[in-house]
Amino acid sequence: MTHQRYRDLAEWPLMGTALIFLAAYAWQVIGRLEGSGASWLEAVMWATWIVFAVDYAANLWLAPSRWDWFVRNLHELLIVALPFFRPLRLLRLVTLLSVLHRTVGETLRGRVVTYVAGSAGMLIFVGALAVLDVEQSAPDAKIVTFGDALWWAITTITTVGYGDLYPVTPIGRMVAAALMMSGIAVLGVVTASIASWLVQRVEDTAETVAEAVEEPVRAEVAELVAEISALRREIAELKENRTL
Amino acid sequence: MTHQRYRDLAEWPLMGTALIFLAAYAWQVIGRLEGSGASWLEAVMWATWIVFAVDYAANLWLAPSRWDWFVRNLHELLIVALPFFRPLRLLRLVTLLSVLHRTVGETLRGRVVTYVAGSAGMLIFVGALAVLDVEQSAPDAKIVTFGDALWWAITTITTVGYGDLYPVTPIGRMVAAALMMSGIAVLGVVTASIASWLVQRVEDTAETVAEAVEEPVRAEVAELVAEISALRREIAELKENRTL
Amino acid sequence: MTHQRYRDLAEWPLMGTALIFLAAYAWQVIGRLEGSGASWLEAVMWATWIVFAVDYAANLWLAPSRWDWFVRNLHELLIVALPFFRPLRLLRLVTLLSVLHRTVGETLRGRVVTYVAGSAGMLIFVGALAVLDVEQSAPDAKIVTFGDALWWAITTITTVGYGDLYPVTPIGRMVAAALMMSGIAVLGVVTASIASWLVQRVEDTAETVAEAVEEPVRAEVAELVAEISALRREIAELKENRTL
Amino acid sequence: MTHQRYRDLAEWPLMGTALIFLAAYAWQVIGRLEGSGASWLEAVMWATWIVFAVDYAANLWLAPSRWDWFVRNLHELLIVALPFFRPLRLLRLVTLLSVLHRTVGETLRGRVVTYVAGSAGMLIFVGALAVLDVEQSAPDAKIVTFGDALWWAITTITTVGYGDLYPVTPIGRMVAAALMMSGIAVLGVVTASIASWLVQRVEDTAETVAEAVEEPVRAEVAELVAEISALRREIAELKENRTL
Repeated sequence: MTHQRYRDLAEWPLMGTALIFLAAYAWQVIGRLEGSGASWLEAVMWATWIVFAVDYAANLWLAPSRWDWFVRNLHELLIVALPFFRPLRLLRLVTLLSVLHRTVGETLRGRVVTYVAGSAGMLIFVGALAVLDVEQSAPDAKIVTFGDALWWAITTITTVGYGDLYPVTPIGRMVAAALMMSGIAVLGVVTASIASWLVQRVEDTAETVAEAVEEPVRAEVAELVAEISALRREIAELKENRTL
Repeated sequence: MTHQRYRDLAEWPLMGTALIFLAAYAWQVIGRLEGSGASWLEAVMWATWIVFAVDYAANLWLAPSRWDWFVRNLHELLIVALPFFRPLRLLRLVTLLSVLHRTVGETLRGRVVTYVAGSAGMLIFVGALAVLDVEQSAPDAKIVTFGDALWWAITTITTVGYGDLYPVTPIGRMVAAALMMSGIAVLGVVTASIASWLVQRVEDTAETVAEAVEEPVRAEVAELVAEISALRREIAELKENRTL
Repeated sequence: MTHQRYRDLAEWPLMGTALIFLAAYAWQVIGRLEGSGASWLEAVMWATWIVFAVDYAANLWLAPSRWDWFVRNLHELLIVALPFFRPLRLLRLVTLLSVLHRTVGETLRGRVVTYVAGSAGMLIFVGALAVLDVEQSAPDAKIVTFGDALWWAITTITTVGYGDLYPVTPIGRMVAAALMMSGIAVLGVVTASIASWLVQRVEDTAETVAEAVEEPVRAEVAELVAEISALRREIAELKENRTL
Repeated sequence: MTHQRYRDLAEWPLMGTALIFLAAYAWQVIGRLEGSGASWLEAVMWATWIVFAVDYAANLWLAPSRWDWFVRNLHELLIVALPFFRPLRLLRLVTLLSVLHRTVGETLRGRVVTYVAGSAGMLIFVGALAVLDVEQSAPDAKIVTFGDALWWAITTITTVGYGDLYPVTPIGRMVAAALMMSGIAVLGVVTASIASWLVQRVEDTAETVAEAVEEPVRAEVAELVAEISALRREIAELKENRTL
């Protein structure tokens, strides 16, 4: 089985697994589960981890150049290699984003809007979850409910930053930094899409003008061809007359 | 009556209705009216709702493809279908923006500036109204006067976000999130317009150079045509001489 | 005297007058002068007002279409018509910016950087002055020294907005709103300049490739011309032979 | 030795020196060293200052036009001329950035990403160091640990600005202003790169279409050449027949 074929086959199962992990993680964090419910969710998350680990191994095995794939996918190694340190689990959600990326495929401008809206929505949700997970047990935490976490994530990704809520733990701040950088990237993609759309509209107009200018050249060349054909016919006649 | 003709006819009455709704809503929220004044304004707002509902039905009836129109106008259904839940009324104001959009028509860069200034101004006003409506009755609200609400809306849409004022209710936060996203879009449009203007200026210069380079080709083709004409004339002469 | 000639002549004196006004205004606001020093500065500011009023009258008189000029320069009317209301005086400083604009002339990308740096620097300085003037006498003001005002202006124009300092008076907030919008414009110009520079670099490469592709067409047309010339020469020979 | 050759030779040693200075400075600021450890680090920093001073002198000596080089490198003069005023030492770190710039060389879009990530990372680290150095001894400082300083630098460069931490000393505020401006520049470069990438993708598609349109012209010209060749051959035949 080739690498490409494996990835095509694994795409939808992996997306499903990532969504199951996200649901279990959200349930655990928002519901603050203890006891048997918590251990059941824990088991589900471990199962998703196994799926990701198997996928990592399969990718590495099937890649045409293993070293290339290894270097380009260091973040996937982190997800698979560090399953015990709880806050790092959120890195697994990157898989979901990469699956989304695969699904969208080659990014034409039309798809950029969908992609930005989807990414921004997921980043806000995942960022809020991760910060809540990390912060809610800190003694002087400001972000202690999921509603607050969502509100904080939105003010952060848009770079508004009121400062009514902010993370106070080192890992919470790392999550925040990732959200801020995503915010800059989202802002950049939005602006760039509008700019590219405007530039194209202006260029379409310019092209119509350019074509109108180029038209005469084409017409003249066509006239030339006709003229030369006529010329050949006349010479052919001339030759015929001669042979008579 | 075709759909397009209905929309052309309905454009100005709908704009007027939306402005009447906005005025009544602003009066009610800023004036904090009670008693007979309040009930009179309430009646005006219900009248505007009926106009929007009739417009929705007419659009759906006349649309060439009803399912297409239905899917693309889900937000208008929300406005019409949920008139009892007070904070959702602000969604009706989207109609005003869409009317503004219709009026501006096809967006050329020259019109972008007017459109951005108009949209930003209206977003600030409508956002301030909506937040004030939602927040002023909350127990720990920070935004309790229209002046504060306007100031908050401006600091939010520009993504400055001092944090001296911020919404504390869930619906107030949803309004804030909408304002922030609008702020990013406005920022994007401003940047993109400047970028597209700069790119065009640079390209105009490049085009002048390119035309100067292309000129010789055109001149040579014209020369070719003249040459071939001369050739034909000579051959014609040759033939005439021969037949003498 | 034509309007254009008047504007050319008045450019430098007006720039000087605006700078004198700015110096006097800054001195009065930062130095919090009372007594004879204050009245002397007041006289200087009135003198600059007279110069601006005379300039306004002269422009209106000499404009080719007075109504056009009047409509396009409503902000200059405000500066001249309302000299008694102290905080509005800062609008006069717009004149300085417009003089700067005139000096820079047609904006090519090379000049954009200078223009942005100059405008941003002046906006920060003028915004800080105006806010300090308005706020320092307010009872619950946060911005009471020029250092604080400058720091506040920088955090505002960059849309960072820590919220450690913010204006509390309505006019202070209007100044802040103007600074925020300037910040968005400055951000837009910076981004657009970089984008246009990048786009041009990429297009330069593309153009080199395009020229390499177009080269053969030109070569073939040149070959055609040569071919036809040879043809004519041969036919001319043919004719000569015939007449022998 | 020419100027260019000197700069090529000095590039790597200077980069090393700047890194040594950065390490010594970071150690001193974060470790809050006193006594013999501090004096040893102080000696290292003076040694790096001597290297920079020698480099400045060598550059000035070897520059083709000394005045030009002097004017374009006023910031390097500041670094060399003011070694006693402690907070100004951070200006020396600009050298490191300029060395990074030299290493990256001509900026093609592919390298822009590396350059932005590198610059942003270094700006955050250097900004955090400089603010901590200046602020940690201030009486009412908010930024007193390196973790806080890093967090503050990230919220500032992304223009989020929560306001939970902010500098209170004039020099700390100058460092903050520099970080904010860097943030705007970084934002601009990110947006511009995405815009330029999008514009190019759209243009690549347009170019393919344009080539498809231009193809017929080329084909017709080729046909013309063939036609004329045939014509010449016929005329040659005609002449041969005649001479028989």
